[in-house]
Amino acid sequence: MFNTYEYFDELNKRNVKIRFDAGQPDLSPNKEILEALISSLNEMGYGSARGLDELCEEIAQLHGVKREQVVITPGSKFAVAALIHNTKCVSLIAPYWPGYKGTADLLGVSIDVSKSYMEDGWLPRVWKPRGDSIILNYPNNPTGTIPPREFADKVIEEAEANGRLIISDEVYRDIAFGERRFSVLDYMPKRFALIHSCSKTFSMPGLRLGYVVGDVETVKKVVKFIRATITTLPIFSQRAAVKAIRILEKEKERITNVYKQRVQYTCEALDSSLFKFIKPDGGFYMWIKLPNINGTEFAYRLMEKDVGIFPGEAFGDEYLEYFRMSLVCDSELLERGIKTVNETAGNWRGN
Amino acid sequence: MFNTYEYFDELNKRNVKIRFDAGQPDLSPNKEILEALISSLNEMGYGSARGLDELCEEIAQLHGVKREQVVITPGSKFAVAALIHNTKCVSLIAPYWPGYKGTADLLGVSIDVSKSYMEDGWLPRVWKPRGDSIILNYPNNPTGTIPPREFADKVIEEAEANGRLIISDEVYRDIAFGERRFSVLDYMPKRFALIHSCSKTFSMPGLRLGYVVGDVETVKKVVKFIRATITTLPIFSQRAAVKAIRILEKEKERITNVYKQRVQYTCEALDSSLFKFIKPDGGFYMWIKLPNINGTEFAYRLMEKDVGIFPGEAFGDEYLEYFRMSLVCDSELLERGIKTVNETAGNWRGN
Repeated sequence: MFNTYEYFDELNKRNVKIRFDAGQPDLSPNKEILEALISSLNEMGYGSARGLDELCEEIAQLHGVKREQVVITPGSKFAVAALIHNTKCVSLIAPYWPGYKGTADLLGVSIDVSKSYMEDGWLPRVWKPRGDSIILNYPNNPTGTIPPREFADKVIEEAEANGRLIISDEVYRDIAFGERRFSVLDYMPKRFALIHSCSKTFSMPGLRLGYVVGDVETVKKVVKFIRATITTLPIFSQRAAVKAIRILEKEKERITNVYKQRVQYTCEALDSSLFKFIKPDGGFYMWIKLPNINGTEFAYRLMEKDVGIFPGEAFGDEYLEYFRMSLVCDSELLERGIKTVNETAGNWRGN
Repeated sequence: MFNTYEYFDELNKRNVKIRFDAGQPDLSPNKEILEALISSLNEMGYGSARGLDELCEEIAQLHGVKREQVVITPGSKFAVAALIHNTKCVSLIAPYWPGYKGTADLLGVSIDVSKSYMEDGWLPRVWKPRGDSIILNYPNNPTGTIPPREFADKVIEEAEANGRLIISDEVYRDIAFGERRFSVLDYMPKRFALIHSCSKTFSMPGLRLGYVVGDVETVKKVVKFIRATITTLPIFSQRAAVKAIRILEKEKERITNVYKQRVQYTCEALDSSLFKFIKPDGGFYMWIKLPNINGTEFAYRLMEKDVGIFPGEAFGDEYLEYFRMSLVCDSELLERGIKTVNETAGNWRGN
């Protein structure tokens, strides 16, 4: 079986240069945010388990909610853990980010999967979730999909009717290319949690800072989880996040332009006789089918040629012919990388 | 019932000045560590779930273990969570830090308590633990005890014979006043975990950085827990910790001198006709008995007089006549605070 961590270790060991594998932005963090971080380093005490008042207030204002509906978390995966920890079963739409499964497995939470297909625009054909919680993730990792309003309406309505906790992982929300948007906040269901983070929007995964906006009871449970595990978050990181949110609109525009161009370029540059994909609505991933070629073998061949991708196998056994490309390289590397991807698949076909 | 968080909130709201309640060091962090932090802020990517190689290596060298025996954690409570997460029942010696219970409760781990008494030097009279894990915590929070070798030998031997995981929370290990020491590393049992952190030794709780040294299998489980929750820790914080460990000996001497003087002063200044205690062997807490006076009521009276303490009730119902004093105030505040503590107890007795 494919082992993600061994594969990544191998890429690192070989010092592979063109990295389309991981979801780590290559853009530089904004200097103002770093300055806010530096000027707060003298604040080395414990903080509150909910997070810095000033930051919670800023987030509450941004989303038009009450401050009790906000809690700061050390990244988005931690938020997932805190949220599903109290549930028995979590419903996911495949293909899904493998991190969800890792967290559910650790916490003994079972997984209920609804499959989706490219011909349906990556929306599940049948929607009969069984979980007491549901994770939605739009713009989606790996497919880049943002669902149409009708689908979102249906999902939220079903969840509301059956008392499911709706967890909306919106870490890519600030990177959308067209008019289409999805946020659980447009519905404000009874039991919900929006997850966001500084990792993608502000290109600062190393800050390990995210947040949850939810109904008051759900947020309380997250606070409890934090109190009993990490206790509190660094205050200086939270000061940086205050600054980040204050310049969100500017940063959103900057990064969306960059990723939009990269997606545009990639869609045009990939050899359409070899690969099948749907142009993403947002995020910075491309989810690509290689008909009749094993994505994992393809990944190992590309590794030899200095290119890393993320094999579809990591997203489940039904995606053996897929791979995910993370567009986190500058235009020169992107061009070189795609050339190698095209040639390698072309040679394979030629064999 | 006493609610710790409400009590702390009340102290904050009233802006109480003399704070003997929480375990937050008042000493300034070393500037060299802060400089290492600042100079690494450009490292904003994801790291490895185990932690920065350079830091693991530094810790491995410090403790004379292999690098696979080290994992970096976001503070010590997180390490406790990662360690007890796979166990059914954890054995504790009362009085114990309430954080252990909070974490065990969250994770559905039951607690088995062995009581200890002042007349026995806070070592349990009977030692028949039932947990598949045991937490030892020396120098102890709240009692300040470091156990004699015979007791430690007995505990480790029993745990080894019965396959219990020995978790040794040694966050106060660098603050010891006499010759007595305890570390699980002096035994290297089959299944063990030493927990340490930057919070107390380096006066940097806000850095949220600690580590576990253990047997390889136990450490692997902690790595797995980190990977499925917080993913990775900030690289810049870990660079600061590398510097911190390199100047550990110097810092250890500096802080031990400060806390030793404060303990000495407090033991002399507390009115011995009103209070009973054993002089701590290490750490920065005093665990004090107020015969026939309720510690919680005492705390609320002191709050009126600008002094915060931690009522014994927080440590369990059998400690209603106790309180914990955290010696994290400078000498002027310490003197004023103790005067108030003496007077308030004296007046109560007089009533």
